[in-house]
Amino acid sequence: MLAGTVIGMATPIVASSANAAPAASSSERGDSGSGTVRRITMYAEELPGNQIGYGLEPGQATIPGPTLEMWEGDTLEIELVNTTNQRLSIHPHGVEYDVDSDGSPLNGSFNEPGETRTYVWSTRAPIHGKGRRWLPGSAGYWHYHDHAMGGGHGSLGLRRGLYGALVVRRRGDLEPDRQFTVVFNGMTVNNKVAPEAPLFEANLGELVEFICIGHGDFFHTFHLHAHRWADNRTGMLEGPNDPTPVVDNKDLNPGSSFGFQVIAGDGVGPGAWMYHCHVQFHSDDGMAGIFLVRNEDGSLPDGAQEALDRYYGHDHGGGHDHDGHAAHSHDDVKEE
Amino acid sequence: MLAGTVIGMATPIVASSANAAPAASSSERGDSGSGTVRRITMYAEELPGNQIGYGLEPGQATIPGPTLEMWEGDTLEIELVNTTNQRLSIHPHGVEYDVDSDGSPLNGSFNEPGETRTYVWSTRAPIHGKGRRWLPGSAGYWHYHDHAMGGGHGSLGLRRGLYGALVVRRRGDLEPDRQFTVVFNGMTVNNKVAPEAPLFEANLGELVEFICIGHGDFFHTFHLHAHRWADNRTGMLEGPNDPTPVVDNKDLNPGSSFGFQVIAGDGVGPGAWMYHCHVQFHSDDGMAGIFLVRNEDGSLPDGAQEALDRYYGHDHGGGHDHDGHAAHSHDDVKEE
Amino acid sequence: MLAGTVIGMATPIVASSANAAPAASSSERGDSGSGTVRRITMYAEELPGNQIGYGLEPGQATIPGPTLEMWEGDTLEIELVNTTNQRLSIHPHGVEYDVDSDGSPLNGSFNEPGETRTYVWSTRAPIHGKGRRWLPGSAGYWHYHDHAMGGGHGSLGLRRGLYGALVVRRRGDLEPDRQFTVVFNGMTVNNKVAPEAPLFEANLGELVEFICIGHGDFFHTFHLHAHRWADNRTGMLEGPNDPTPVVDNKDLNPGSSFGFQVIAGDGVGPGAWMYHCHVQFHSDDGMAGIFLVRNEDGSLPDGAQEALDRYYGHDHGGGHDHDGHAAHSHDDVKEE
Repeated sequence: MLAGTVIGMATPIVASSANAAPAASSSERGDSGSGTVRRITMYAEELPGNQIGYGLEPGQATIPGPTLEMWEGDTLEIELVNTTNQRLSIHPHGVEYDVDSDGSPLNGSFNEPGETRTYVWSTRAPIHGKGRRWLPGSAGYWHYHDHAMGGGHGSLGLRRGLYGALVVRRRGDLEPDRQFTVVFNGMTVNNKVAPEAPLFEANLGELVEFICIGHGDFFHTFHLHAHRWADNRTGMLEGPNDPTPVVDNKDLNPGSSFGFQVIAGDGVGPGAWMYHCHVQFHSDDGMAGIFLVRNEDGSLPDGAQEALDRYYGHDHGGGHDHDGHAAHSHDDVKEE
Repeated sequence: MLAGTVIGMATPIVASSANAAPAASSSERGDSGSGTVRRITMYAEELPGNQIGYGLEPGQATIPGPTLEMWEGDTLEIELVNTTNQRLSIHPHGVEYDVDSDGSPLNGSFNEPGETRTYVWSTRAPIHGKGRRWLPGSAGYWHYHDHAMGGGHGSLGLRRGLYGALVVRRRGDLEPDRQFTVVFNGMTVNNKVAPEAPLFEANLGELVEFICIGHGDFFHTFHLHAHRWADNRTGMLEGPNDPTPVVDNKDLNPGSSFGFQVIAGDGVGPGAWMYHCHVQFHSDDGMAGIFLVRNEDGSLPDGAQEALDRYYGHDHGGGHDHDGHAAHSHDDVKEE
Repeated sequence: MLAGTVIGMATPIVASSANAAPAASSSERGDSGSGTVRRITMYAEELPGNQIGYGLEPGQATIPGPTLEMWEGDTLEIELVNTTNQRLSIHPHGVEYDVDSDGSPLNGSFNEPGETRTYVWSTRAPIHGKGRRWLPGSAGYWHYHDHAMGGGHGSLGLRRGLYGALVVRRRGDLEPDRQFTVVFNGMTVNNKVAPEAPLFEANLGELVEFICIGHGDFFHTFHLHAHRWADNRTGMLEGPNDPTPVVDNKDLNPGSSFGFQVIAGDGVGPGAWMYHCHVQFHSDDGMAGIFLVRNEDGSLPDGAQEALDRYYGHDHGGGHDHDGHAAHSHDDVKEE
């Protein structure tokens, strides 16, 4: 893996209503009112290493799959093409769908080998219920994944890479300069382990967005060095006395997702900042990577090249090296 | 287990102060002021399969036990009759009790075999402390369980079924049309596994309340298809810009509990909607069931019967069936 | 271990700005404006039982290490003296530091055996970003730990005891009468198991503060009997209708931390109140201790001596005793 390559930041699909003028909205709804309907095609394709990923074009599958983006009020119609020889599906968290778009074999909602099937996802803003109560809208850092390969819960499809991020924004939300997807899948990060865990890069001062997703059979905690975020929907507080906890270490367990926006290097400066699972034997076994915050002009800050060299581990001596990471071979792509 | 039987929705005890006119309350307290004292008797009794449950009448023990309900300000006095040949107790989360009602052998607060003992639980509304700070009240989705059988922490009593839900409401809270208790106890749901995990039923548009409780030795995540809720005390937002995260997948670990209210089929329509632990091998091993949202008139929506048939698995062929669930025998009632 | 000894409540360092008059602050910042810079020396030293701890004076190392306290706006410069024969470091959560103070071997930020090195931690109040968004400040219940002994993640240093609490307060926060640090490290509480888990003591009505930290390889849930707190930054609500969940059982996983303030014995009275991990086999295996709430005058309340006697287990008969705890020998100091 070349230093500097960004893995995991697939091109986002931004629904065009992001820039639409808001239609008149009733006092009962807070959405944009424009309700864009977008249609895309996704391809489930085999990848090297016995993996399978989703992609937006043939031959373009990635792990994680492409980050899909919507604004509350939008609808997304996904025509999923299953190019593999096993059944699979696409099942989302957080958005609205009927039983035919559930993605579960329970509801017969999946693609047989070679089949193409359309799944429809809808979203909405919060709706006023009774009194102080508002029914939740769809905004959030969500995700999608297979739910049919290897049983009724898609366990094999998940292991092999069929997962990706889904962001639903609320009117007024900020759009980031950079977007990173971190999936703690089994004992891997995006189906990789150090020193091939994804390298995320940004320049000092940019607004970056982390989308974190958990999958598999193990519990995890996501930790990011030198940064912290409000433990709410956006990662930012709503005022100077907002009592929301601020965190830098958060549970990331199977099926769960969260996200946050932070200013890269905010208050700490540029550098090679670690992110990792904080379960000790998980980090020791490779669930660790780097969030590289470059200087504002994009140049490498002092010390960063040395840190990257340590991470990529030109020294693989037995036991624990001076490079700061337990020794292991580049061939060890651990699977769940 | 007959299709359509609802397990887990025991008759709730609703304290009569739900409808009481609020007494004059000081500006320092927010409770109803009526402070009802209610007395009930509960029976700990053996059940088939080497299980033990709590019940409100002799011969009526269930797993989970009856859902107890209180409003902030109420007191509940529970006369617990231990009909078994082992010591046991009842220990609540969230409410107030003195050391004699702790339910712990540490404090000598338990029933010897055959003994009857009274436990007293109190509740209150939030109290104004200093400045911006209010001391928490008792409102919440809580639970109760044994703390004495099989050691000082009730591990055997828990395994055998001695647990149940406890809801404390705050004045202004909505009361649901349906109420479901989901306990992830060891590797079971309410001491059952698919296809005998509880079936929860509601009609489209009803206000339903899920109470989720974790017990045992394993970590879990609770996921519900096609629905989502605000991750706060009620499951609903307080305004269109409320920054509370909205979730559909949440950690549910030993001793923890949470609850939420949602409109059945809100934005998605009727159908057989899965709920399950999202730890892959847990769902594959049976921690999965159905939340059946019927049509408004109570009839079965299209496709639901087929989904139920798949779930109840008339095809138990080896490996993975087309019924959407890993094959296993009806005899496999897995215990923790 | 003598009954009544308080383990884990090391003398806190309170930055002097706690009492400073706030300087004029811009409308964009909410901090105290005084920005005290404090310098301390810490010593990493070996302790009996193959353990290592941090201390503020030579020969004064403890496990957990000293609780460090700051107010938003303060800076802390820590001169760390490594008296051991292995490399180690100090890495904080939540506060601001540059790569030289990261505490990670990745960034070459650690002490070789016998080396002294200075680490600088900064803090700030929330900063107004755009529109409704405020960038988080540093206030929170954080922690610090080794990140270099036994590999790039400090797994051996953590096991051996190199961890401690770090509290950053916001202007307006209440300071407690008592402060307790509870670290679920592996299968221990502060590197001890029952009956040597820390005993926390307070008098009825005092404002006590629990700081809870998770470390190691296992998941845990922290439960406290007879008390409950708001699941936010302070443990207290902001008003009578604050929708923040109130909890008494909370996930406490590796690298995570949280804290809360409660009134000792609030609504329940004095007594020997258990705290424990609620993962059943963890509590059965010793992750349990006592929070002793004495009478207001400091005397032992009725029943407390008996409870303490049961906990300290003068009866170590095989299997499960009547003392409320699984039998085990005083020699069993379980390590992770």
